[in-house]
Amino acid sequence: MNTLLLEAHNGVLHITLNRPQSRNAMSLEMVNELRTVLAQLDSQVRAVVISGAGGHFCAGADVKDLVSAGDQLQALNRAFGTLLQEVQATPRVVIVVLQGAVLGGGFGLACVSDIAIADHQAQFGLPETSLGVLPAQIAPFVVKRIGLTQARRLALTAARFDGVQAQRLGLVHFVERDPQALAERVDEVLGQVLQCAPRANARTKALLLASVDQPLEPLLDQAAQWFAEAVASAEGIEGTQAFVHKRKPGWCK
Amino acid sequence: MNTLLLEAHNGVLHITLNRPQSRNAMSLEMVNELRTVLAQLDSQVRAVVISGAGGHFCAGADVKDLVSAGDQLQALNRAFGTLLQEVQATPRVVIVVLQGAVLGGGFGLACVSDIAIADHQAQFGLPETSLGVLPAQIAPFVVKRIGLTQARRLALTAARFDGVQAQRLGLVHFVERDPQALAERVDEVLGQVLQCAPRANARTKALLLASVDQPLEPLLDQAAQWFAEAVASAEGIEGTQAFVHKRKPGWCK
Amino acid sequence: MNTLLLEAHNGVLHITLNRPQSRNAMSLEMVNELRTVLAQLDSQVRAVVISGAGGHFCAGADVKDLVSAGDQLQALNRAFGTLLQEVQATPRVVIVVLQGAVLGGGFGLACVSDIAIADHQAQFGLPETSLGVLPAQIAPFVVKRIGLTQARRLALTAARFDGVQAQRLGLVHFVERDPQALAERVDEVLGQVLQCAPRANARTKALLLASVDQPLEPLLDQAAQWFAEAVASAEGIEGTQAFVHKRKPGWCK
Repeated sequence: MNTLLLEAHNGVLHITLNRPQSRNAMSLEMVNELRTVLAQLDSQVRAVVISGAGGHFCAGADVKDLVSAGDQLQALNRAFGTLLQEVQATPRVVIVVLQGAVLGGGFGLACVSDIAIADHQAQFGLPETSLGVLPAQIAPFVVKRIGLTQARRLALTAARFDGVQAQRLGLVHFVERDPQALAERVDEVLGQVLQCAPRANARTKALLLASVDQPLEPLLDQAAQWFAEAVASAEGIEGTQAFVHKRKPGWCK
Repeated sequence: MNTLLLEAHNGVLHITLNRPQSRNAMSLEMVNELRTVLAQLDSQVRAVVISGAGGHFCAGADVKDLVSAGDQLQALNRAFGTLLQEVQATPRVVIVVLQGAVLGGGFGLACVSDIAIADHQAQFGLPETSLGVLPAQIAPFVVKRIGLTQARRLALTAARFDGVQAQRLGLVHFVERDPQALAERVDEVLGQVLQCAPRANARTKALLLASVDQPLEPLLDQAAQWFAEAVASAEGIEGTQAFVHKRKPGWCK
Repeated sequence: MNTLLLEAHNGVLHITLNRPQSRNAMSLEMVNELRTVLAQLDSQVRAVVISGAGGHFCAGADVKDLVSAGDQLQALNRAFGTLLQEVQATPRVVIVVLQGAVLGGGFGLACVSDIAIADHQAQFGLPETSLGVLPAQIAPFVVKRIGLTQARRLALTAARFDGVQAQRLGLVHFVERDPQALAERVDEVLGQVLQCAPRANARTKALLLASVDQPLEPLLDQAAQWFAEAVASAEGIEGTQAFVHKRKPGWCK
C-alpha cells in the first residue's frame, strides 16, 4: 500500500491515512487502497480504526486528481461515494480518530463511522461550494449523520467548526482535550466493542442500517429470525453460559 | 392482571410494570397483558403513564422465557416487536417514567413513548450483543428515536449511560434529580396533555407518525381534510368559543 | 404587496412580514403574496431573509380567515402547506430571524429555513391541539426539522419554549441575546453564504433535500454528474483559479 499504513493486532486493524504532505488528501489511489483493504479483511478482524498521519485526518479530495481526471471526473467522484457506501456497510465496527483537518471527503468518511472520536481543535467543514463545486458524494451521508437541519447550514455556508461543536451537532460521539486522552478513549471504546460478540455485532449493524430506510414490518420479522438463530448459535450458547456462570464469554479480549 | 398494576383516574391510566423480583423483566405474560390493556382502553382514557415497581423500569427480556421457548423463540421475540408497534401507534399520549434499569426491551419500550421522563441515575443500555444475541425488535425503534449515529455506538458497544446522557442523546425529554421532582414533572406534563383536545391529539399523533415515512404530498392533502373536519367538529367549535370568550375549553381537566 | 415589506440589495432579498397589529398572523393574502414573491425572484437574488415587523415573527394562522373560509377551509389550509413546500424547495438560501411569537404557522415557516437565528426570548409553540384543531400542514415539517421524538412532545402538549431551548432542540442554529447581536449574526451568516457560489449552492441544496427521502444509489450517480458539470462550469473554473491564485472568486461580495 502506497497511501496507507496498516497494523493489525488483537482483532483490530489500525489504518493510518498516510499522505501527510497533503494533509492525507483523498487521492484516487487512496480510495482504491481503502476499498481493497476493506474487501480483503481477515475474518479475525472485529474492528477497524482509521486515523491520519501527521496530525490531520483528511483534508478532502486531491485537487491534482481533479485537474488531471478529464473525462474520468464523474467516475472518479462516484468512486469516492462507493468507498463511503462500503465503509458504511462493512460488518466490522469502524472507529475514526479525528485530528486537524476533517474537510470535504474527510468529513464524509467520518460520517460513515460507527464511533467517532475527535480532538477538540479538529477543524471540520464542507468547503466545496466556496470553491464553486459541490459536496456531491458527501452530502447524502452528512444528512444521514446529523440530519437535514444542521447539514443545510454547514453545506450552504462552508462554515468551519471544531470538535466541541462537532459533538454538539451529533457528528462525533466523543471530544478529547489532547492526544493522550484521545488514545485512552480509543482504547476504552475498543475494550467495549471487544466484549460484544462479533457475529451478533455484525448482524446488529446490518439491522441498524436497514432501520433507516426499510419498511418496519418485514424488518421486525427478519430480526426475529436472526434473534432465534443467535440464541441457538455458538455465540448465543457461550453468552448464556458465561452469564449463568458469571464469567467472561470466550470472545472477550 | 398478573404482571401489571392498573389505576385509572381523571382520564389517565397509570400502568405499573409489577415484577419487581426480576426488575420488571418483560415476560411473555407481561407482553400479552400490556397488549390486552392497550386493546381494551376505555374511550375516556386520554393518556397512559407507564412506570415500574420497586425502583426499576424494566431490565429487558426474561431469560427464563428465552430458555424455555424452544421452537417458539422467534414468535416470542416478534410478539415483543408487535407490542412496541402497538404502543407507538396508540392514539393516546404515552408517558414513561424511567428509574433504575432501562435495559434491552425496557429501552425499547421507552423509545415508543410520546414523552419520557428519567431519573438522573437511571441506567440505560443495550446489553444484547455482549450476551451473544441481538437487540432485534428494539434496534429499529432506537434508530427512529435517537437516529442512526447514536444508535450504532450504543448497540455495538453495549455501553451503559445515565439519565443525563439520555437527555443529551434525545432519548428522554426530561431528567430529574429525585422521586419528588419526577412526580412533579409527570403532573406538569399530564396537566399540559389534558389541556389539549383528545381527538385533535389523536389525529395529530397519527400525522406525526405518518410524517416519518409517508410521502409528503398526499400527507398534506390528508392533513388539510382533517384540519377542516377538526374546525367543524364539536372540539373545534368548543375550542374557538373558549378562545373568543377567554375561558378554558370543556376538555380541560 | 399589502402584507410584506420587500428590500433587495447586494444579492439579498429582505422580506418583512408586515401585519404587526395581528403579530404578523399568516393570512391567506400573506400566503399568496409570499408565494408570488418566491415565484418571481430575480436571478440576482442569492439569499432571502425573512423577519417580522413589530417584534414578532408570526403568531400563526389568522383566525378571521378560518372563520370566514366556509367551504374553502380545506383549500385554505392546504395552500399554507404549499407555501412551506415552496420555501423548502427554493434554490436560494433562506434565513429566518425569529423574535417574539413563533407559533403555529410561524413555527412551520421557521422549519423550512436553511438557517434560523432566534432571539433568546422568542416564544415558540404549537398551540393548535389546545384549541381543538391540528398543526395539520405544519406537523410533517416539524418532524423533518427536529425529528419525531421532540415533535411528538411539543405537538401533544402545546408546550411553549424559548430561543435557548429551540437551539437545544435543533430547531434553530443560533440564539442571540439582543437585537444588535441578532443583526450581527444575520450579517455574519450572509457573509458566509455570499462566499459560496450561487449555482453550486442551489444544486447542493437540491441534493441535501433529496437525501432525506431518495434512494442513495441513483442519488450518488446524479451527484457525480453534477460534480463533473460543476468543475467544468464557469463557477468551477473561477473557483479553481481563485484558489490557485489565492484571491477571492468573483461571486464573493
